[in-house]
Amino acid sequence: MPTLQVPGTPRCVHDKHHASTASPCSDYPILHNMSPPASTKVDLLIVGAGPAGLALANWFRGTNIKVLIVDKKPGPTPRGQAEGLKSTTNEIFDSYGIGPQVTAESWRLEEIACWGTRKDGGEGIVREQVIPDRVAELGKPRETMLQQSRVEHHMLHNILSHDNIEIRYSTAPISVDVDTSCVHEADTFPVSVSLEKVTTNTNTTNGDTTNGTNCHATNGHHINGQNGHQPNEHDAPSDMISAKYIVGCDGARSWLRKQLDVSLEGDLTDSVFGVVDLVPKSNFPDIRRVCYLRAASGTILLVPRSNKEVRMYIPVESGTALPDPKDLTFDRVMDAARKIIAPYTMEVGSVSWWSAYRVRQRVGNHFSRLNERAFLVGDAVHTHSPKAGQGMNTSIQDAYNLGWKLRLTLRGKVRSSGARQDLLRTYESERRPVALDLIAFDKGFLKLFAAPSAQFDTEILQALKFTTGLSIRYPPSCAVQLPKGIEQLGPSLLKADLVPGKRLPDFRVVYQADGVPTWMHKRLSATGQFRVMIFAGDISDSTASKRLHDVGKYLGESKSLKHVVMPQSEQEPLVEVLVVHCAERDLVDLLALPEVYRPWSDESGYDFWRVFADVESVHDGHGKAYERLEIDRQVGCTVVVRPDGYIGAVLEVDDVEGVERYFEGMNVS
Amino acid sequence: MPTLQVPGTPRCVHDKHHASTASPCSDYPILHNMSPPASTKVDLLIVGAGPAGLALANWFRGTNIKVLIVDKKPGPTPRGQAEGLKSTTNEIFDSYGIGPQVTAESWRLEEIACWGTRKDGGEGIVREQVIPDRVAELGKPRETMLQQSRVEHHMLHNILSHDNIEIRYSTAPISVDVDTSCVHEADTFPVSVSLEKVTTNTNTTNGDTTNGTNCHATNGHHINGQNGHQPNEHDAPSDMISAKYIVGCDGARSWLRKQLDVSLEGDLTDSVFGVVDLVPKSNFPDIRRVCYLRAASGTILLVPRSNKEVRMYIPVESGTALPDPKDLTFDRVMDAARKIIAPYTMEVGSVSWWSAYRVRQRVGNHFSRLNERAFLVGDAVHTHSPKAGQGMNTSIQDAYNLGWKLRLTLRGKVRSSGARQDLLRTYESERRPVALDLIAFDKGFLKLFAAPSAQFDTEILQALKFTTGLSIRYPPSCAVQLPKGIEQLGPSLLKADLVPGKRLPDFRVVYQADGVPTWMHKRLSATGQFRVMIFAGDISDSTASKRLHDVGKYLGESKSLKHVVMPQSEQEPLVEVLVVHCAERDLVDLLALPEVYRPWSDESGYDFWRVFADVESVHDGHGKAYERLEIDRQVGCTVVVRPDGYIGAVLEVDDVEGVERYFEGMNVS
Repeated sequence: MPTLQVPGTPRCVHDKHHASTASPCSDYPILHNMSPPASTKVDLLIVGAGPAGLALANWFRGTNIKVLIVDKKPGPTPRGQAEGLKSTTNEIFDSYGIGPQVTAESWRLEEIACWGTRKDGGEGIVREQVIPDRVAELGKPRETMLQQSRVEHHMLHNILSHDNIEIRYSTAPISVDVDTSCVHEADTFPVSVSLEKVTTNTNTTNGDTTNGTNCHATNGHHINGQNGHQPNEHDAPSDMISAKYIVGCDGARSWLRKQLDVSLEGDLTDSVFGVVDLVPKSNFPDIRRVCYLRAASGTILLVPRSNKEVRMYIPVESGTALPDPKDLTFDRVMDAARKIIAPYTMEVGSVSWWSAYRVRQRVGNHFSRLNERAFLVGDAVHTHSPKAGQGMNTSIQDAYNLGWKLRLTLRGKVRSSGARQDLLRTYESERRPVALDLIAFDKGFLKLFAAPSAQFDTEILQALKFTTGLSIRYPPSCAVQLPKGIEQLGPSLLKADLVPGKRLPDFRVVYQADGVPTWMHKRLSATGQFRVMIFAGDISDSTASKRLHDVGKYLGESKSLKHVVMPQSEQEPLVEVLVVHCAERDLVDLLALPEVYRPWSDESGYDFWRVFADVESVHDGHGKAYERLEIDRQVGCTVVVRPDGYIGAVLEVDDVEGVERYFEGMNVS
Repeated sequence: MPTLQVPGTPRCVHDKHHASTASPCSDYPILHNMSPPASTKVDLLIVGAGPAGLALANWFRGTNIKVLIVDKKPGPTPRGQAEGLKSTTNEIFDSYGIGPQVTAESWRLEEIACWGTRKDGGEGIVREQVIPDRVAELGKPRETMLQQSRVEHHMLHNILSHDNIEIRYSTAPISVDVDTSCVHEADTFPVSVSLEKVTTNTNTTNGDTTNGTNCHATNGHHINGQNGHQPNEHDAPSDMISAKYIVGCDGARSWLRKQLDVSLEGDLTDSVFGVVDLVPKSNFPDIRRVCYLRAASGTILLVPRSNKEVRMYIPVESGTALPDPKDLTFDRVMDAARKIIAPYTMEVGSVSWWSAYRVRQRVGNHFSRLNERAFLVGDAVHTHSPKAGQGMNTSIQDAYNLGWKLRLTLRGKVRSSGARQDLLRTYESERRPVALDLIAFDKGFLKLFAAPSAQFDTEILQALKFTTGLSIRYPPSCAVQLPKGIEQLGPSLLKADLVPGKRLPDFRVVYQADGVPTWMHKRLSATGQFRVMIFAGDISDSTASKRLHDVGKYLGESKSLKHVVMPQSEQEPLVEVLVVHCAERDLVDLLALPEVYRPWSDESGYDFWRVFADVESVHDGHGKAYERLEIDRQVGCTVVVRPDGYIGAVLEVDDVEGVERYFEGMNVS
């Protein structure tokens, strides 16, 4: 008879491969009327089914990794506050295969209108300029709008058909214990969590201290990825969970953060804002543009939302007599708004949500704990002003950074305990600096609202680049390797943004086989695969062509790489080799290239979609990839792209040893 | 006690508004153990749930029109043969709101490779040229590939949530009677149909005489839009149907066509083809391009499909010894293919379907019957060679043409019986000539395959335009009105393709309110609304501005139009007034325009999305709409666009009487 996992008495649970007959957990069903249920074993327990938790779970589609997500909410978020999606977040959705659905529902932001006080000393505000919301480096729209609940909807529906991922709503963890004695061993379940059902008071589903109108879940909808029906008494899931890893995606008031003794460092600011989502009845002409309305009494940020709504961030009596947000009334917030927007009217059609808050700018002192068996993601470890639209985006991007590392680890692709821990440690070493930078940026950004600046437009454009994540560069690690002999990051050593640690800049090329154009990030689906991307130059030239052949033959035969680039079985290779050339397509014969560039499978034929050309497309113009990436068409280069689309290494085009070195450094197989 | 509708004893059933107590049909449930069920009343009975039937049904989303679709198949098509989607068909999907899903799954066709015999007299074929598959008039990809079952899937899922539309699979009509005595009265149900359950032999779901591998439905899945569950004994739907209208979308062997005594006119050709869908193992370099492989023994058309498949249309011993398609074996077809494709190899990975056929080129002598109470759509009234990819496209377009006319009629928007019939008659007068043109085209197209032509590339490009539907022009009628005083169609009288009877050429503009770019057809959702599209010119100029104001005020106050353009209630107007100007956006104040251009609703705020500017967009360049449509920026014009995106009238910009005349001609309210 299995013994019970009691909170507070941590013990190490081994999985099937290692289980002795005395294993405390059984894989066989137990009659519930005979004894309390044994613990359920999962590979990964995610606390919180918001944007971060769902984004994390999406990494485990198509695997046999058991994932359990618990959330105290009674069901999917009926209305979240976040709405803006940066293009880098949209690239993540592309990689998850939900880009088209998200894009179809989203609304693009095209321009920013700046309004200010009249130069002639008259009253009221006037339009000063309209700034196109365009970042040349991106080559595509920088931000789109889709409300959080729809973003969550698409991420949720993308995992529902995967039996290995289960979601339990109205469920909260009440204790967690980690057996540190076995955290270094693979295939152990050191995390013990006890769960309880939450009887939801539908008036408190929103954890914020908002004092306005809230929308709530109206039904306690249960989603269970394994059987799709609401559990009843006889198949009630166990409330004891044994997990290999636990991740807290449980928001600003994270329960897991408290259990892990992680503290948030930073301060409350002295900025108090009202935030209002309403259908406006207003004669203000730019109501469907992002507007900065800069008057003497402060700056309103106005953002158009879906359903004819706009959101306004309204400064309320900043400066001397700082009010307590709790004392603010809707009328007082709207009065402050009307004062700034005058001479234009601002009547209220309907209000779907409003709140008042003082900005907290804080970052967790740890992002992972307990030998990388427990992690914190998103709002759980950083809070800041919502104005830059960074909450949902950064949460999703945190999760995206962590997910592939857990996936590789849990699939047994990382060979040693040390290498596993090295890889998982990069979550904190990569994402904590991003959060710290974000707070630093946020302080400056808030100042923009406090006092009109002479360089307002320049600063806004800088801010747009920053908030899109274009300045993020992860430090060197096992997953970000600098060229041999170079130990310091140095952009001057390498070209443009094609440097280790940065996101692979997106670019548009056409498929060699059929001329169909694609953005590269759309092609890089989140399969957990690395990509070795060979920018082979003009391979109609015999030197470049021979070089590409030699590289292809080497990769396909290399003792250390062969099994990851060309696995014997029908399974997907861990490393996909891609070619981007810049020759005329009709001078290139795809099927004459080495097999690693167009592998054959008896089951499904040739893979025609690994070779790309940087040429004019029939309908969409020329992507000019080599030019954008500043790659010499004669010299070329080879880039190792991580499963999350960040650059792991930049090498000379034929540096096959460099490729071997990268994967040896990662210790994957 | 209601009496039974007996097949062969037609009787006129009136609906609730006209029902006497002696009405043979009751709206109230009857206990099934007391008597045989009474007939079920529906507004529209659609026979066949293929592309045509589903496209037709999509017109009735969001209405209270009761639609019943029956199909003898046990469930959705698991695999249809069609795959190509013309851009004009994709515009229909856009209008149905499923464009993004369809596009996301589709594969674009970018280019066409022409191969021919060697000029030097050597053996085997060589690539002669690659023609970009680009039609300048379209400005967007001309054709995409998505297999029929997925196309049907998206159309089906788009109607499932609408309670007014029901689908019954495994159900076939066995008799139909139309009471001609009341076909002129509105709100009568002259069509009586008796249905029966079909016990499906899963080996005969495909009605074609194919002799190859077929995929079949594996489950007898029932979809019932009204209650979503499989009917059981106690809530079995009645098998007697009384309908206002019946439409046969039941394919080449149409049951309804036979009942209506419609005959197909035309011939079997002397061309015998094998058609094969396979995963090729071939070293032919253009296997992912559309290819015409022209050898002495005939021309193969090779089309890449999804899932690494290609389709080949292979001529088999054309000329003297014409084989019977039934005698052809797969090996014989493949041998013919290999002979043409030599010196390249063509081995078979796997075959998902193959068939052999002789082309029939026939058109029905009627498209509607019985005072426009019964209609035939798609393959039911025209068959032709599948090579031009016209089957699924023309079927969907037929249905799209008919659907809005039935919708208007069934919603009671057409005031007189005569006007209703005039409108419904335009289905035949508009679509039958299209089918006849298609057959004429098909004859020439087939010749291209029989004998190599010197002008092959020119003819192919001409064919591309034709098959995309760009030459379709509907004749004058109540729905296509020529300018006053002009009775003959004459392109020379009017500019470019902006002429009555043609599809509104698609163009890209940006929304005045927010700068977001859109293609116009994406904006023209299939709501059944007409659009009065005012190309107002440069309204930063005071003359043009005043003109636009005057037109807007007139339309909003006109006795005959006011209630259709600005209904009192919250209901959607039957006519949406749109403005496309070419002024700089910042010189235009949207909210200062007359209300008809930006109406207010207490429920949902301003409608900001009726005014467009032909200007440079922030991310997508300049759509140059005025230039493409050849509209003079000083003069402008006003276009009445029908609910199906075809042009009803082209008028002078301020010809408000012309607008009144159009809707008086249609007799709608």
